[in-house]
Amino acid sequence: MAEPASTLAAGSVGTVETQYLDLPEPVRLDCGRELHPVRVAYETYGNLSPRRDNVILVCHALSGDAHAAGFAKVPPEESTRDGFGATDRDGTAGKGLGWWDGMIGPGKAFDTERFFVVSTNLLGGCRGTTGPGSIDPATGRPYGPDFPVITVADMVRTERAFLDELGIERLAAVAGGSLGGMQAFEWAILFPDQVDSVVSIASTHALHPQGVAWNAIARESIMRDPGWQGGRYYGTGRAPDAGMGVARMVGHVTYLSAQALSDKFGRRLQFADDIRYTVTEAEYQVESYLRHQADAFVKRFDANTYLYTSRALTYFDLARQYGSGSLARALDGVEARTLLIAFSSDWLYPPSASREIEEALRALGKPVALHVIEAPYGHDCFLLEEARQTPIIRQFLAEDRRQL
Amino acid sequence: MAEPASTLAAGSVGTVETQYLDLPEPVRLDCGRELHPVRVAYETYGNLSPRRDNVILVCHALSGDAHAAGFAKVPPEESTRDGFGATDRDGTAGKGLGWWDGMIGPGKAFDTERFFVVSTNLLGGCRGTTGPGSIDPATGRPYGPDFPVITVADMVRTERAFLDELGIERLAAVAGGSLGGMQAFEWAILFPDQVDSVVSIASTHALHPQGVAWNAIARESIMRDPGWQGGRYYGTGRAPDAGMGVARMVGHVTYLSAQALSDKFGRRLQFADDIRYTVTEAEYQVESYLRHQADAFVKRFDANTYLYTSRALTYFDLARQYGSGSLARALDGVEARTLLIAFSSDWLYPPSASREIEEALRALGKPVALHVIEAPYGHDCFLLEEARQTPIIRQFLAEDRRQL
Repeated sequence: MAEPASTLAAGSVGTVETQYLDLPEPVRLDCGRELHPVRVAYETYGNLSPRRDNVILVCHALSGDAHAAGFAKVPPEESTRDGFGATDRDGTAGKGLGWWDGMIGPGKAFDTERFFVVSTNLLGGCRGTTGPGSIDPATGRPYGPDFPVITVADMVRTERAFLDELGIERLAAVAGGSLGGMQAFEWAILFPDQVDSVVSIASTHALHPQGVAWNAIARESIMRDPGWQGGRYYGTGRAPDAGMGVARMVGHVTYLSAQALSDKFGRRLQFADDIRYTVTEAEYQVESYLRHQADAFVKRFDANTYLYTSRALTYFDLARQYGSGSLARALDGVEARTLLIAFSSDWLYPPSASREIEEALRALGKPVALHVIEAPYGHDCFLLEEARQTPIIRQFLAEDRRQL
Repeated sequence: MAEPASTLAAGSVGTVETQYLDLPEPVRLDCGRELHPVRVAYETYGNLSPRRDNVILVCHALSGDAHAAGFAKVPPEESTRDGFGATDRDGTAGKGLGWWDGMIGPGKAFDTERFFVVSTNLLGGCRGTTGPGSIDPATGRPYGPDFPVITVADMVRTERAFLDELGIERLAAVAGGSLGGMQAFEWAILFPDQVDSVVSIASTHALHPQGVAWNAIARESIMRDPGWQGGRYYGTGRAPDAGMGVARMVGHVTYLSAQALSDKFGRRLQFADDIRYTVTEAEYQVESYLRHQADAFVKRFDANTYLYTSRALTYFDLARQYGSGSLARALDGVEARTLLIAFSSDWLYPPSASREIEEALRALGKPVALHVIEAPYGHDCFLLEEARQTPIIRQFLAEDRRQL
C-alpha cells in the first residue's frame, strides 16, 4: 500500500492510506458482552515475507491512531461515519507524518526493509476502528455511553482477530509505548506461543495510584462538562470541548517533566516584559501553550473514546488480571523475549515499573533486557528520543533469542 | 478573645471567634487601582506584650482563612454578607480546629504563652476579608470579575494597614507555608525595618513553570464551567462547582506525593475484589477520595477567590519584582533573619527553591537557616509534620539574631 519513497525523504515509507477491515465474528469482551460489528482501521509498511514470519505489530498510545508512519492520504469515508471529519484533524496526526515516523521506515528502528509493520487503531478508538462514536446496530445511532467498557485485553483480542483476517499467525514482535506497551505485554500473556518478542517502551505493568488519579481527573473534567450530556452528544451540535481541553492540559503536563517545562518556557511572559494583571488571559508562555494544545486536541479527538481508553488504562494491572496479585505469576507463561526501554525523567511511567517487570522476568528465567535512557523530557521521550532508541531496538530485533 | 483552655486539650488556645476590622484608608494595589472599603477578618491568640514586641503574623495558603488555631465559633454575619454561609463550610475549616492548630498554642511551635499570634484572611479571600464576592460600592452588587487583580504584595500591604489599626508596628516574626511563606518574604522586602524574622515553610521565591501550569489548569477548569458566567454567578443560583471540583482535584494531587497516594490508597478498588466495568463511577479508592475532596471544597470556597489567589501565586517572583531578574538583588535589603523549612517529597515547592533563597541570603551575609525535612507526604507536609517542625521553629524563635 506504500508508494515508492524516491521523491520523499530518505527512510520514509512514503505516502500511506489508512485501510479498513470488518471482522467477521463478534469480539468477546472482558465485561461479558460481545461487540459486533467491529471495523479495524490499519496501515501496513514494508512487505510480508513468503513465510509470514516478519510481522511487527505496532500499538499506539491513548491519543494515537493507525497512522504510525509515512505521509497520510486522509481517508474521507470512515471519518464521516464516526462524525469526526478529516478537516477536524490537526497537523500532528491525520494529515501529517505518522506518530512514530521516526521509528518506522527503511533503516529505522522498525526497519521496513526487513519487517512488515502493521499498525491498527485500537478498539474503542475514534480514528476508524469501532468505538463509542460508531453506529450501534441495535439503535441505528452512535453508541455513546452504551458502548461496552473495554480493557487492554479486549484491544489485543481485537488485534488478534484482525491479524487472522490478514492471514498472519505469528508476530516477530509486538511493540508500543505507554498504552501501546501495555498491549504488547497483554499479547505476550494472552497469546504466548504467537509472539516472538515484545518491545515495550515507557510502559508499566500497572499504572501507579497517582497515574490513576490523573486519569480520573481527566475523565471527571469531561463528564462534568454539560456538553457531554451523559455521553449522548453526537449530532447535538454540542460536545464537551471545554472539559476535553482541560483533560488534555492535565495529560500534557504529566507527559512532560518539570525540567522540560522549565527548559521550554521558563517563567517567560506571553506578550511583554511585565505582567498585565489579568486573571482570564494567558499571561505566561506555558499558559498559552497549554491552551493551544487543548484547542488542537479537541478538534481531532472524541471525548468518549478518551473516557473509554483512559478507563482501560487504569484497569490494566497484570498482577491483578493474571497473577492473583503476583506479577511473577502473571508473567510465568510468557515465551517471548522482552525489551524494555524507560526514560529517567518519566514520572508517569517511571523506570521503577519497568525494573519490576525486568526483575520478575529474570527471576523466571525469561530473556529480558532493560535500558533506562537518561533524558529530560518525561514520558514524551518515547516519541522524541528516536535516535537513542533506534540502535537498542535494531540490535534487539537482530539478535537470536538465545543470545539475550 | 480566647477563652480559658482548662476544659480543652492541653496546648489549645481554646474557643476562638473570628473578628473583623474595616481599614480606614484605601489599599493601593500593584495594578494601579485602589480598593475601598477593605474589611479584614482576623483572629489573635495569646497576649500582646506591653512593649508590643512579641507579635507573630501568621499568613495562610491558597484555601485557608483567619481561623488558624483553636476551636471556632462560626461568625454568622460576615459570611452572609459575602454569600458564603457558615452552613456551607465543612468540618475541616470553619467549624473545626484551626488549619495550623498543631503549630499555634501554649508550648507549641508558635508559643502563645510567649507570643501574640495574629492571623488574617488574605486580601481577595472569601472568609471575611474583602474579595471578589464582596459588595462593590460602585454598583451595590458583588465585584465578581470587576474585583482588581491582586498580588502577594497587595496582600502584605493590606496586612500592614490592618496591623496599623491594631497599633502594632513591628513583627517579631512573620510566618507561613506555601503562599503564606511568599507573604513572609514580601514582608521582609517591603518592610525590612519592621520584621525581625521570617519563617517560610514549603515555599519559594517563584513558582516553577510546572507549578504555573497546574495553576493555569485549575483556573481554566473553573472559567470553562458555564456556571462561572464570566465571574458573575453570585445570586444566580448557579456556580462553577463542577470546574471548581476538578481544580481542587488537580491541586490535591499536586499537594501530595506519588508515594503518599501509593501508601494511602495503592490500587485498591472501591467496593469489591474485582472491577465493575464502569466509566462513570469511581472504581478505585483514590478516585472516590478525589471526588469527596472536590465536593467538600466546593461547599466551602468561592471560585473567584480561587482564581484571584491562584493568579497572585503565579505572579509572585521576587527576582522579577525586586531584582531585575536577580534573586540576590531582590533580597539585598532584607534585614530579618530567615528560617526556611522544606520537605524532601514536595514537588510543587521543591527544596531546591528554598536552597536558592538560602544561598542568595548567605552570599549577602544575611542570617539564614534551611532545614530540609525528609518526609514522604509532599507539599502537605507543612500542615502535617508538626512534630518535626516544632523544635526547629521554637529554637529559631528563641535565638538571638547574632547566634544564627
